[in-house]
Amino acid sequence: MFKATIKIVLRPSILDVQGKAVLHAVHDLGYAGADQIRIGKHVEVILNVADKAEAHRQTDEICKKLLANTVMEDYTFTLEQI
Amino acid sequence: MFKATIKIVLRPSILDVQGKAVLHAVHDLGYAGADQIRIGKHVEVILNVADKAEAHRQTDEICKKLLANTVMEDYTFTLEQI
Repeated sequence: MFKATIKIVLRPSILDVQGKAVLHAVHDLGYAGADQIRIGKHVEVILNVADKAEAHRQTDEICKKLLANTVMEDYTFTLEQI
Repeated sequence: MFKATIKIVLRPSILDVQGKAVLHAVHDLGYAGADQIRIGKHVEVILNVADKAEAHRQTDEICKKLLANTVMEDYTFTLEQI
C-alpha cells in the first residue's frame, strides 16, 4: 500500500482570483505584511498496489486524467509506503 | 520575506464527501486499487516580515481566523525564508 500526497497549484502565469480575495480578507484582518496568496488543492490517495513504480504510474495518470487541469495547473506528488 | 506553505485537511473523523465522489470517479476510470481519497487545501502565503518568529505567529493567526475551520479541519504549515 502506498499513500500518494498530491499538490495541485495554478500555474504561476494564471491569475488566482480566489487567492486575491483571501489576500484582501487577510489585509482587512490587519496583516499588512501579507504580499501574495495562492490557493491550490491537497489530495491524499491510498493506493493498494504492490510496487512503487506502479503506484507512481497510477498516481500520475489519476492526476492527469482527473485531478489536475493541466492547461492551468501544475501538480507534484510524493509516495510513501504504508 | 517568508513563504508559508499551509496544508489544511479535514479531521480524520469527518466524512470527506468530496473525496468519496472523486474516489468513485477514480474507480470508474479503472483504478481498482485506489482505497481512499481525502481532499484538502494547499495555501501559499508570502509574508513581508522581518523575523521567523513573527512570520510563524502571523501565519498561525491567519490559519485560525480565516483559512481553516478548526472545528472540522486541521492545519500544518512550514516557513521558508525567500
